[in-house]
Amino acid sequence: MTKYVYDFAEGNRDMKDLLGGKGANLAEMTVLGLPVPPGFVITTEACKTYLDTGDVPAELAAEVTAHLDGLQQQMGKRLGDADDPLLVSVRSGAKFSMPGMMDTVLNIGLNDESVTGLAKQSGNERFAWDSYRRLVQMFGKTVLGVEGELFEHEIDRVKKDKGTANDLDLTETDLQTLVDTFKAIVKKETGDPFPQEPRVQLDLAVRAVFDSWNGDRARLYRRQERIPADLGTAVNVCTMVFGNLGMDSGTGVAFTRDPGSGAQGVYGDYLANAQGEDVVAGIRNTLPLQELENLDKASYDQLLGIMGTLERHYRDLCDIEFTIERGKLWMLQTRVGKRTAGAAFRIATQLVDEGLIDEKEALSRVSGAQLAQLMFPTFGDVGSAKKLTKGMNASPGAAVGKAVFSSETAAEWAARGEDVILVRRETTPDDLVGMIAARGILTSRGGKTSHAAVVARGMGKTCVCGAEELDVDVNAKQIRLKDGTSVEEGDVLSIDGTTGAVYLGEVPVSPSEVVQYFEGTLDAKANDLVEAVDRLTRQADGVRRLKVRANADTPEDAERARRFGAAGIGLCRTEHMFLGDRRQLVEDLVLAEGETEQQQALQALLPLQREDFIGILRAMDGLPVTVRLIDPPLHEFLPDMTELSVEIAVADSKGQKVPDEQRKLLTAVRRLHEQNPMLGLRGVRLGLVIPGLFALQVRAIAEAAKALKEEGLDPRPEIMVPLVGAVQELEVVREEAEQILAEVGVEALIGTMIEVPRAALTAGQIAEAAEFFSFGTNDLTQMGWGFSRDDVEASFFSRYLDLGVFGVSPFESLDRDGIGRLVQIAVDEGRATRPDLHLGVCGEHGGDPDSIHFFHGVGLDYVSCSPFRVPVARLEAGRAALEGGGSDTR
Amino acid sequence: MTKYVYDFAEGNRDMKDLLGGKGANLAEMTVLGLPVPPGFVITTEACKTYLDTGDVPAELAAEVTAHLDGLQQQMGKRLGDADDPLLVSVRSGAKFSMPGMMDTVLNIGLNDESVTGLAKQSGNERFAWDSYRRLVQMFGKTVLGVEGELFEHEIDRVKKDKGTANDLDLTETDLQTLVDTFKAIVKKETGDPFPQEPRVQLDLAVRAVFDSWNGDRARLYRRQERIPADLGTAVNVCTMVFGNLGMDSGTGVAFTRDPGSGAQGVYGDYLANAQGEDVVAGIRNTLPLQELENLDKASYDQLLGIMGTLERHYRDLCDIEFTIERGKLWMLQTRVGKRTAGAAFRIATQLVDEGLIDEKEALSRVSGAQLAQLMFPTFGDVGSAKKLTKGMNASPGAAVGKAVFSSETAAEWAARGEDVILVRRETTPDDLVGMIAARGILTSRGGKTSHAAVVARGMGKTCVCGAEELDVDVNAKQIRLKDGTSVEEGDVLSIDGTTGAVYLGEVPVSPSEVVQYFEGTLDAKANDLVEAVDRLTRQADGVRRLKVRANADTPEDAERARRFGAAGIGLCRTEHMFLGDRRQLVEDLVLAEGETEQQQALQALLPLQREDFIGILRAMDGLPVTVRLIDPPLHEFLPDMTELSVEIAVADSKGQKVPDEQRKLLTAVRRLHEQNPMLGLRGVRLGLVIPGLFALQVRAIAEAAKALKEEGLDPRPEIMVPLVGAVQELEVVREEAEQILAEVGVEALIGTMIEVPRAALTAGQIAEAAEFFSFGTNDLTQMGWGFSRDDVEASFFSRYLDLGVFGVSPFESLDRDGIGRLVQIAVDEGRATRPDLHLGVCGEHGGDPDSIHFFHGVGLDYVSCSPFRVPVARLEAGRAALEGGGSDTR
Repeated sequence: MTKYVYDFAEGNRDMKDLLGGKGANLAEMTVLGLPVPPGFVITTEACKTYLDTGDVPAELAAEVTAHLDGLQQQMGKRLGDADDPLLVSVRSGAKFSMPGMMDTVLNIGLNDESVTGLAKQSGNERFAWDSYRRLVQMFGKTVLGVEGELFEHEIDRVKKDKGTANDLDLTETDLQTLVDTFKAIVKKETGDPFPQEPRVQLDLAVRAVFDSWNGDRARLYRRQERIPADLGTAVNVCTMVFGNLGMDSGTGVAFTRDPGSGAQGVYGDYLANAQGEDVVAGIRNTLPLQELENLDKASYDQLLGIMGTLERHYRDLCDIEFTIERGKLWMLQTRVGKRTAGAAFRIATQLVDEGLIDEKEALSRVSGAQLAQLMFPTFGDVGSAKKLTKGMNASPGAAVGKAVFSSETAAEWAARGEDVILVRRETTPDDLVGMIAARGILTSRGGKTSHAAVVARGMGKTCVCGAEELDVDVNAKQIRLKDGTSVEEGDVLSIDGTTGAVYLGEVPVSPSEVVQYFEGTLDAKANDLVEAVDRLTRQADGVRRLKVRANADTPEDAERARRFGAAGIGLCRTEHMFLGDRRQLVEDLVLAEGETEQQQALQALLPLQREDFIGILRAMDGLPVTVRLIDPPLHEFLPDMTELSVEIAVADSKGQKVPDEQRKLLTAVRRLHEQNPMLGLRGVRLGLVIPGLFALQVRAIAEAAKALKEEGLDPRPEIMVPLVGAVQELEVVREEAEQILAEVGVEALIGTMIEVPRAALTAGQIAEAAEFFSFGTNDLTQMGWGFSRDDVEASFFSRYLDLGVFGVSPFESLDRDGIGRLVQIAVDEGRATRPDLHLGVCGEHGGDPDSIHFFHGVGLDYVSCSPFRVPVARLEAGRAALEGGGSDTR
Repeated sequence: MTKYVYDFAEGNRDMKDLLGGKGANLAEMTVLGLPVPPGFVITTEACKTYLDTGDVPAELAAEVTAHLDGLQQQMGKRLGDADDPLLVSVRSGAKFSMPGMMDTVLNIGLNDESVTGLAKQSGNERFAWDSYRRLVQMFGKTVLGVEGELFEHEIDRVKKDKGTANDLDLTETDLQTLVDTFKAIVKKETGDPFPQEPRVQLDLAVRAVFDSWNGDRARLYRRQERIPADLGTAVNVCTMVFGNLGMDSGTGVAFTRDPGSGAQGVYGDYLANAQGEDVVAGIRNTLPLQELENLDKASYDQLLGIMGTLERHYRDLCDIEFTIERGKLWMLQTRVGKRTAGAAFRIATQLVDEGLIDEKEALSRVSGAQLAQLMFPTFGDVGSAKKLTKGMNASPGAAVGKAVFSSETAAEWAARGEDVILVRRETTPDDLVGMIAARGILTSRGGKTSHAAVVARGMGKTCVCGAEELDVDVNAKQIRLKDGTSVEEGDVLSIDGTTGAVYLGEVPVSPSEVVQYFEGTLDAKANDLVEAVDRLTRQADGVRRLKVRANADTPEDAERARRFGAAGIGLCRTEHMFLGDRRQLVEDLVLAEGETEQQQALQALLPLQREDFIGILRAMDGLPVTVRLIDPPLHEFLPDMTELSVEIAVADSKGQKVPDEQRKLLTAVRRLHEQNPMLGLRGVRLGLVIPGLFALQVRAIAEAAKALKEEGLDPRPEIMVPLVGAVQELEVVREEAEQILAEVGVEALIGTMIEVPRAALTAGQIAEAAEFFSFGTNDLTQMGWGFSRDDVEASFFSRYLDLGVFGVSPFESLDRDGIGRLVQIAVDEGRATRPDLHLGVCGEHGGDPDSIHFFHGVGLDYVSCSPFRVPVARLEAGRAALEGGGSDTR
């Protein structure tokens, strides 16, 4: 029979799935012999049954009764007792922390009789009535769904009548009256009296906590934090202890190390004569934890001892909540503490040095996402700039620019070279132009899945959103704050996308020390952060199986990638090589009449292309360079059809002369215009339709390699054919390419992108003609889902995140069920045909931590990502190897 | 050990894979005791080895020797014998007939010695030398690769010297001289003398036949006819018999029934004193076969007897090649004969009536493609129109219109209401506009995979291509013919895409009798063709498992579909309902500011939509109607961005006033403009982003059904959500739709299109929220291959067909390996989740014969196609059921 209730003493920290994080840790501390108020946990299984069936499991009532009896016996108190009542708290506690997202009810067990018992026992009538007042208010609001405002309003009314603003001025009589008023509110709003029976209070509170799993806040949070929706929450029923029984009581939080820097020491806050919720509410100022030594040395010493025990036991930074009730210390919670990215690296290496964990364990304590954060520039000394507010840290980075309030202004000002910050209440697809033009985006509404946040992250642009204290008035071109400050168009703003901070004035931006280290301009021993990053990335390099390459199109990028630790280039795009000065040559190619003119145009490109490849192959001497043959449709190199049409039509209407060349160009633009260029004449299709185009590129690659070999270097080009959907396409290109390679006398692997769904579905055939596959997961995602990133990200991704269609944009992190399955099929069937098939990924997912674990799991040989992401990928590839996890897509 | 050579007497007609069609049928006739010249077959396996390895199997030489010895013994003659030589023919013969595509060499065994033996035996020196001349010429050209012109030129020279134009005027001396000249040419061109050793001649000829499998002509033909490239050809080595030994000899072809009409009787041609190649060359006029009775009654009677034997044996129309050598009849070939579509239906039912086959067998003798041909209108009496030429029948139908020579003129004339035929040498993507505007397309170059042919078939437009006798001069706007006829711009042309015929002048177009029968305007007993179609479609209906529905958007289409036998509507598109007068309402919706205006715009559409659905549901009373919620992006209902931009810019530049509404519209058009609309905000995405849009449609459907139920009818609407890629999308729509259905009080199945690859890949999840799947194979093909039909069909499909990337456009016939696999996955995993999931297809493949067999094999419940294709689909579904074939995609 399933067991739905566990005493704290029956559990341990490994039971988080069943007992939730809070419950498992309370159990662990209980078993360690630390002073935890006795209690028990109702499991997540009970919650799941409740959520699935609408009712708790039949056996639950009897189990709760048994554990409650045990608790009453242990404490020598009874719930609802008129002389010495037991009170309990009912708190949610899911596997993953969801702070403030679910419900809590304190002081369960108080009623019209037991409140007198509490008064007797505490010797404090005011405290007893205040506790009862709190219960009716909290229970009314949380469990019975009464509008919280109704209670607050009554408290305000009483205080106003007494001419005071402070809760502490309310007397026990006032509180007694308030309890009556509150009970009347409950009766009026719900039709039933406030339940006097403690067991009814408990059962209803438990159900309310279960229900809160599916509250709006909780669902939104889970989506944002990618917490599965079907885990459910446990419920902790715990004997109440009180920090508000006088100055010998109090409550506090503590960290075993500084969660900001990782430094060892005593960090925390303490508030005398208060309950935990008072600390959170921030009504009174807390004291630094150190001062507890003066107030209650015995408890302080005991707490420090416990902190040491916990850190050694958990072998990590712990954060702790505790209460002192009349000089007796109680532990209410502990967990592995959150920390900044920098602290994570420092603490992980400190713990190694302290002998608590080994290097491999240390690697699991940091993440690629944290390393990525450390690679953004940060704001330095704020100086004279004024901190206006803190919003949501929606897309990291540090951006400084002049405030503008419309997309048009953003584009105009940016076009004349100004840095701007686009400020909007919220953004819409119409703001896209402005978002592209701006250095950063600031909104006063919307969370991490708002349009602004989603689009900014997609662009890699700094964004702070939901800064609600800012009153953004786009018509007046002004931000107003409650303190009277205002920001006008043109005023300089500095926004920190990593912390959410917003400053008026320019804050100097400091380059990342971690980047300086990777660039080789800062020594690995320069400071403890850099040293920690150095140690852990080298550790990752030692254990990872995935190689990491970079996507780089220029010698400069290639060199940087090499410094950052890339083992080659996984994607060298060649289309950039046809821009700038060479646009004319591409126009010549497009406008060529007949094959001779076409060949001439191609010939003109050959020496230029050869130089391009010499540069890149030289920078990557000795390492593989995967060159992708030209991919985009030709019209991308030509003027915009609408603009050119308007230009010519306007000139015509004014009787101005339009050069013949111009008209010819328009004809070509019209001819090449496509309804859906992404699904048009591009990639291998272009190569098969324009004779000599791919041959030109292959010859340039071959001749470049030849030239370098003659210099004594070791060039290693690989030729990658884009957009292949059928093996026959690749065979035709391969045959021509092999002939050219043989003519020039160099060797190169020939392979293909797997970016069209059909390529993945027929990978077993395609592998017959390919020595390597490189998954183009961007296009694979676009075609597999049937949406183009350019078109849809701005128009409906935020809506989809809100609806929960995605937990995260499939362009940020690989969609395992759909696109991942295509990857898995192609890996399995490609290798079945050709066991030594070399497999990599060159879409942006190659630099995404979660996706890297997937790619490790399916057995790719390498990931390729932007040069800046190379260290992140190295670290995550190491973590993936340690996890040893396989793919979960099947 | 593999056996590579079979005597004719060792084989039978079931051995086509190994012996090829010709060889297997020669064997069958031999076994039947018919007079077949003795010989043997070298198998396709030997050919495959040769093609794979570049050499014949090691064992082949000895096997050939053994069979040759047997042959010589049987005939009492020896190859190369100076007194009585054996001569053999070496002919190709693949599994599938590839007429004229591969090589043949006759008279193998003649050399400087045996030519005298042949002269002795035949008593005809001229014949002997002419035979030797033919061998050297044919062997030189076919086996040794000497330019054929060189030989022809010499013959012409001799005839010129003698002042004659007729080969028959050449004497044996002339021929002897020509043999010497030809041998000299061979020596000069190849460096080696003409091989005198008969076995060398034979071995080289066999290799040449093998090589011809991969000749350009053969490869092109295979691609067009969708014959696999790896089958190889067999080689038939057969004792020569001669029809050119005098007037008691001759050669002919015969059909056991009229291949044009199916009528029973004696059909064929005979040519006295001639070899088969002379008949093919058409130099002399043939006689009707009946006249053989007067020339050689014994042979004629024997032939008629054999024809009866063969037809009874093969239980089908046979076509026959025969030769009479000095009064002795020899059978050289037989096979099941090709026939017109009409004859196919007539013959199949005749054979049933004659008791040769049963009804099921009859069904296998006709095809959906043939039925489709019978449903096109045809030209009636040619009258005064002049037949100009016959080109390739590239895309069926009958089109009449004025000749135009440019795309622009086609568009202009069509715009003013004229029917035009676009005439080009060949078409390019630039001609697309003209092709769309024209009634038909005529080109003088290019085959069935040319641009014109591919694009016209894609459009379902009549096309004759490769009419090489027409000299198309687009600059002079004229077609010239050798006979001096010319066609000017504006002259009326009539082109028959079913036969390839081209007429000058208007030929009246007759409607199809088969269509009239299906429409119910012609009785099933009206004539034998209609009766045959009636019998066989009813037979198909009796055996098929697949139901056939129609794609129909209007009550008129729905009614026609019903007449044609549709069991419901599989796809009712709703976007057409927003065009015409209602465009303004859609503009209102797009331009609406705020939700209230948006809701007003939607409310205005509700009564109109309800009437739409009442009409269709009424027409399909009692049958299911699957309504697809709106799919295309909103900007499709708005003006073209470039046109509107030009209009406003020109007006502005002239200082003309532009209405505000117009500018507002441009802003909206710009906002909604998408780079890739096919991958943009459409389908379910639109439904989730625009509140109330899908709700409006669901309500209209529900209210329409309600209204009809109140009339006592039986409406059966099904609601289909387009473009779903994730189950969550469907869940959101489903929840809203169920609520509306419940409110209105009607029931409807709710399901989804499977048209996005991810939908197929996650079908197991999607089936949780779908009661049916309908495969949208058009989009599935576009997204699976990553190309948009609009953009690429014109720009590179003909190139891809030529390169063999496709055997047929994947939009015509389902690509089983890629897209078929997605279908298979979705079927398997959808049904695993929901065993009673209803499965259909509504892409155009639903009417394609080949694809229907696939859909039957994977276990769909129905196909849905255009109303006109419904009979074709019924027939093919029946054939598929009889074949019982499963899917071959795994």
